[in-house]
Amino acid sequence: MTVDDLARGVGAWLRGEGPLGDVVISSRIRLARNLKEYHFLPKADEAQRKEIHRTLTERIAATRLGDDTFFVDIDESSDLDRQVLVERHLISQQHASSDGSRGVAISAGESRALMINEEDHLRIQVLGSGLQLSKLWTEIDEIDNILEAEVEYAFDPRLGYLTACPTNVGTGIRVSVMLHLPGLSMIQQMQKLMRAAKDMRLAVRGLYGEGTEALGDFYQLSNQTTLGKTEAEIISDFETTIIPKIVEFEHGARETLARDHASQLDDKVYRAYSVLGNARIMGTGESLTLLSHLRMGLFMGRFADLDVNTVNEMFLHSQPAHLQKISGSIMEGAERGVARADYLRRRIASRN
Amino acid sequence: MTVDDLARGVGAWLRGEGPLGDVVISSRIRLARNLKEYHFLPKADEAQRKEIHRTLTERIAATRLGDDTFFVDIDESSDLDRQVLVERHLISQQHASSDGSRGVAISAGESRALMINEEDHLRIQVLGSGLQLSKLWTEIDEIDNILEAEVEYAFDPRLGYLTACPTNVGTGIRVSVMLHLPGLSMIQQMQKLMRAAKDMRLAVRGLYGEGTEALGDFYQLSNQTTLGKTEAEIISDFETTIIPKIVEFEHGARETLARDHASQLDDKVYRAYSVLGNARIMGTGESLTLLSHLRMGLFMGRFADLDVNTVNEMFLHSQPAHLQKISGSIMEGAERGVARADYLRRRIASRN
Repeated sequence: MTVDDLARGVGAWLRGEGPLGDVVISSRIRLARNLKEYHFLPKADEAQRKEIHRTLTERIAATRLGDDTFFVDIDESSDLDRQVLVERHLISQQHASSDGSRGVAISAGESRALMINEEDHLRIQVLGSGLQLSKLWTEIDEIDNILEAEVEYAFDPRLGYLTACPTNVGTGIRVSVMLHLPGLSMIQQMQKLMRAAKDMRLAVRGLYGEGTEALGDFYQLSNQTTLGKTEAEIISDFETTIIPKIVEFEHGARETLARDHASQLDDKVYRAYSVLGNARIMGTGESLTLLSHLRMGLFMGRFADLDVNTVNEMFLHSQPAHLQKISGSIMEGAERGVARADYLRRRIASRN
Repeated sequence: MTVDDLARGVGAWLRGEGPLGDVVISSRIRLARNLKEYHFLPKADEAQRKEIHRTLTERIAATRLGDDTFFVDIDESSDLDRQVLVERHLISQQHASSDGSRGVAISAGESRALMINEEDHLRIQVLGSGLQLSKLWTEIDEIDNILEAEVEYAFDPRLGYLTACPTNVGTGIRVSVMLHLPGLSMIQQMQKLMRAAKDMRLAVRGLYGEGTEALGDFYQLSNQTTLGKTEAEIISDFETTIIPKIVEFEHGARETLARDHASQLDDKVYRAYSVLGNARIMGTGESLTLLSHLRMGLFMGRFADLDVNTVNEMFLHSQPAHLQKISGSIMEGAERGVARADYLRRRIASRN
């Protein structure tokens, strides 16, 4: 398996088939871990980074987390390969653009990704379609236990797991959920939701994590505290209270739209469909917005000409790095705009 | 013939079949005339206005300018009927919204329109498709002569025809040409053309005349001086020099676009087509812009799914008053947006 093979497919977790999949794109849990015998990365020199990278690669390989797990050496990867991994949410932008020995282990289906030498020595990440945090928690806890049998983690009996950044100390857990909230956005309720999220000490981010805009009405919601709550509590809060409540708000917004603003709703949906199928030049921002409207239309039953898998594939493959990877050539922005429109037009023409 | 009948059709002069019709939508000549025996309108009371209106109506009817000429009493018309006439360029906005006894005589095919009691007692107007000013001059001169045999015009041997506003004194002629210049607009050359027009003492106006924006890249070019030049000179300047030169510029711009910016060009054309055929809500400004792009695409051979008559009909019938007239109901702005999108969608679906 290579990044090339990866780029052509669609990760299992992006199938849009999970619980509450009309609103919850995906669930993600990550654990931050560090090896006791090495300095935290800000203090490690390149020789130590290399040793950490080598050690963790060996141990992960030994555990057979999945037979098809494959390793990517990020430092030796091309810029394009790194960006493909960022666009698939398998590594962070920081991991792609930093320096030094570092890597990622990716399972088949892309539901597990273990970053080595990102901010911490190890970042274990599991991804799933829709809202399924307790299932992911069982999975990641098992991976964590398997690895803990192989390596000694930096752990303090009082504080819990020690991490490079104090905000991660404790459980070292981050729970995050990618939400698609076009309904709340259309009825102008996002500001209100943002304020409520802040009150609950949740972080709200855009499609590509920290510092990115909420393009296409996609929002990543995640916990901010890792200290003072057990993993089970954090996950239960998300899965049984916070996310179902937001989903309920979004469903309410969509019902309002369908009942009172059917023309505005269909206007967005059908413009999106027709422009995606006919434009000759298209930027990333516009394609995300239009695909977002199309996805909303599909799940609301306003539109049946495409299936959700096709839309998800278009989301993934119209991103800059994927576009270049699939076309097999490096392209400037203007050239990509034409290639993106070509890809989307062909994909819609050959739909389902 | 009534305004209702009128609204459902498309004036012969808008067929887009005249000389240089890819760039020159239409040609128009109007003459300003006043009856010697009455005050100019700013000084006339309502009784005199009524008498002027009645006298001119009788004389025009007597000359049989065309058997199917029909008269509309503007003061007694509904707001909607007045706006339909404005949208068809048969009367001015000023004529629609002012007060007092006034009217218009319209020939079958709408190629002649004589406004009574607008700014002057009489405004004779002839319209034609494409660039055909000398033909129109022959026509309007004949009408003018026929009427001059029936009434006595206010005329000064030294100054020429006397008019309510000094800018029209002399020949009382205004020559204007409606141009479609999407190419020059796309390659950002309109400012340059505007400056050149100003140097030549030409007025450049938008689709609906004085004070209106250049929506959809439509520009009305007209002479500003009526004194010191003969009608023949003014017309010849327009027909053999000024307009052909601008058409040449526009053709050059279109060639540049097709050669060097084919994607940008087709992007505009195909987005226009798909959005017009799929939107559920559309404002006047957007529909004009999109129809403009479609018209450009048709004449440039980028696109063959519609014929130019269908596009012209859509231009006319998607305007606010026409939309309401044809649907048979008075609608608010938001309602019109939905009705406009419905009309355009149906018209494209049932094309040719």
